[in-house]
Amino acid sequence: MSIITLTTDFGCKDHFVGALKGKIYSEYPDAKIVDISHEIDLFNVSETSYIIGASYSSFPKGTVHIIGVDSELHQETQHIAMQWNDQYFICADNGILSMLTQKIIPQKIVSINIHDRLAINATAMDVFVTVACHIARGGLLNVIGKEITKIKEVTELQAVVSQDSSSIKGYAIYIDHFGNVVTNISRQLFTEIGKGRKYEVSFKNYKLKTILPNYSSIINFEQNSMKFYEGKELAIFNEAGFLEIAMYRSNPNSVGGASSLLGLKYRDFVSINFI
Amino acid sequence: MSIITLTTDFGCKDHFVGALKGKIYSEYPDAKIVDISHEIDLFNVSETSYIIGASYSSFPKGTVHIIGVDSELHQETQHIAMQWNDQYFICADNGILSMLTQKIIPQKIVSINIHDRLAINATAMDVFVTVACHIARGGLLNVIGKEITKIKEVTELQAVVSQDSSSIKGYAIYIDHFGNVVTNISRQLFTEIGKGRKYEVSFKNYKLKTILPNYSSIINFEQNSMKFYEGKELAIFNEAGFLEIAMYRSNPNSVGGASSLLGLKYRDFVSINFI
Amino acid sequence: MSIITLTTDFGCKDHFVGALKGKIYSEYPDAKIVDISHEIDLFNVSETSYIIGASYSSFPKGTVHIIGVDSELHQETQHIAMQWNDQYFICADNGILSMLTQKIIPQKIVSINIHDRLAINATAMDVFVTVACHIARGGLLNVIGKEITKIKEVTELQAVVSQDSSSIKGYAIYIDHFGNVVTNISRQLFTEIGKGRKYEVSFKNYKLKTILPNYSSIINFEQNSMKFYEGKELAIFNEAGFLEIAMYRSNPNSVGGASSLLGLKYRDFVSINFI
Repeated sequence: MSIITLTTDFGCKDHFVGALKGKIYSEYPDAKIVDISHEIDLFNVSETSYIIGASYSSFPKGTVHIIGVDSELHQETQHIAMQWNDQYFICADNGILSMLTQKIIPQKIVSINIHDRLAINATAMDVFVTVACHIARGGLLNVIGKEITKIKEVTELQAVVSQDSSSIKGYAIYIDHFGNVVTNISRQLFTEIGKGRKYEVSFKNYKLKTILPNYSSIINFEQNSMKFYEGKELAIFNEAGFLEIAMYRSNPNSVGGASSLLGLKYRDFVSINFI
Repeated sequence: MSIITLTTDFGCKDHFVGALKGKIYSEYPDAKIVDISHEIDLFNVSETSYIIGASYSSFPKGTVHIIGVDSELHQETQHIAMQWNDQYFICADNGILSMLTQKIIPQKIVSINIHDRLAINATAMDVFVTVACHIARGGLLNVIGKEITKIKEVTELQAVVSQDSSSIKGYAIYIDHFGNVVTNISRQLFTEIGKGRKYEVSFKNYKLKTILPNYSSIINFEQNSMKFYEGKELAIFNEAGFLEIAMYRSNPNSVGGASSLLGLKYRDFVSINFI
Repeated sequence: MSIITLTTDFGCKDHFVGALKGKIYSEYPDAKIVDISHEIDLFNVSETSYIIGASYSSFPKGTVHIIGVDSELHQETQHIAMQWNDQYFICADNGILSMLTQKIIPQKIVSINIHDRLAINATAMDVFVTVACHIARGGLLNVIGKEITKIKEVTELQAVVSQDSSSIKGYAIYIDHFGNVVTNISRQLFTEIGKGRKYEVSFKNYKLKTILPNYSSIINFEQNSMKFYEGKELAIFNEAGFLEIAMYRSNPNSVGGASSLLGLKYRDFVSINFI
């Protein structure tokens, strides 16, 4: 009984997500469906890439991920299914899987070729549901597609290391529900390049001397109560392994969050300078 | 193991939807619950009717649909359960099922009469849960209600054909998550009345000469890149079978969508003129 | 097969909720997961307390509730698991369970002490998932924590009775999706103190002489049609058992709801005076 996850930009008001689940259960009644997000910014490939990259590791081997963002088939794109790290990803070949393939080499990728076996007015979701249920039932990728070796890459997602390794320059790739700003600088890159050197995280006019192990580490209980630290800016590596600029217990819906209060927006630069 | 779907105007912040699921599982632990929408515009019967009409066909036979919109019992309404096209619908008799009953004749309708068997402070949802679990377990409609033959109709949902069949006049019944405008002109009506004649879709000051088979058909790859077509208006029949005025890959949260950019709002007229 | 419910302030756009479910299924594939809310106001302990207090009774015995609001472990808080009324609650000890413990005495409370058995970068959610799956599988609380007898209370949630029992003074603790205002005055307290006396509900410049059995009771069908009563203010005890100031069929997204139209905001006073 495989898990099938859903990541889309469909929103939750329309019937799209419910209908998608109805189609999955119609074809594979034993499916266990998990919503990852349906609130992806419309057609936003790099945001999707981050969400997928941040969530896959929480799922067991064999999980099948349907990604319904910018998925309509046309002349310049194709539908693909990828086996990667013992999980499966089904989407349009539009760069969405970049964050995964930059990390680990895929086990197998196929260009889906079942379209002519489906009804003439079948949508991209009909195709993805058929493929997902096939895989969830233990079917082989080769039955639903032709093996390919190359897929589209979105390289903009990668942080850049200076030639002398004195700094890593990245930028904001995601603003989360708490208003915190996620960058594309990974803990792994920081460790590899930093080699234990001292550093400074800088963005806008701000400089932070420490990347904390977790949010509450900002509190020095001997000096001040917790309340004192609310709204203080801090840097951590989030649970997805990326450098995040946050504000301790701040609320973007009332006083504001890190993004609004520090003026740090999607695509703005954040860098780490080693000393 | 039947599917029970939920369509409500309860929103997702309050505990209402979670509590509803808890009650279903308490009474029928094997239920497979699917959310269709909980973001229906409050008390909006015609919006609900569209969502139900657009989603039922994705579900297998025997599916039970609970519709929690404008469902409080009072002197001028009743609670009903309807068997239709081998699926079941439970709601208040407020016109919500019009889009279904205008298409196919119901197999059976009952006026639910179990209220005096429930606790004195039982809510409409308690009634619907009891009925849904009864049906999902294979129970008969006659056990929970008295057969009736007529339910309330909302005729405003129907498009109008001119006397000489030269045009179909409809209007916008739903604005979706992408800002696209769904009308009440069905593909079926268009085909029946149009009989292959040339046509023009018109609304506000816009005229469109073609209803496309899908969004990407707007692209002429030999003339321009995909980017060129972003934000262009187009007409298609959506997957629910209704004429939709859309904008190619437009984002209502940033640049705007079809509804905001074309000034085409809920209830505005859209017509098809045959030539 | 226990139910595990989720109540968080994580929102639905980020991957947090999906990842949480992936972790639960990874550890306990037979889990039945129910979302109560992921839209809790950030870090809002009293709002969470209300949502939990309003929803638990819809779930069967043995249900395990994970509460992910303000849950990061630090020097001044601890992670707890509580058995109460034959259900289980897992959260940080920050007052979230006050509404429950003020009503019924807990069966057992433990301070969770499994943190050093988990990975060094385990999050609060990793801890809660491990505990929840342990309990859902029938495990004992003592295996995952040390028994304690006292937890943090948020007393601000309680309404106050005047010395001569002539009035109950409460305040707005929650504004719901319909714009209705929920107070902290319970039906139980009203019945105990009122002893059948006449009363008046008062707030701002408004006075209401009756608490209705349900919303539609405001309609006098012999005098006016339903339409006439739309937007009229009324008081009821909601299904969670608390006094609620509502507006009949009003829509906060268009014309406004009780909160906006009556100027009755979170923390504003509402009282019942007995005559």
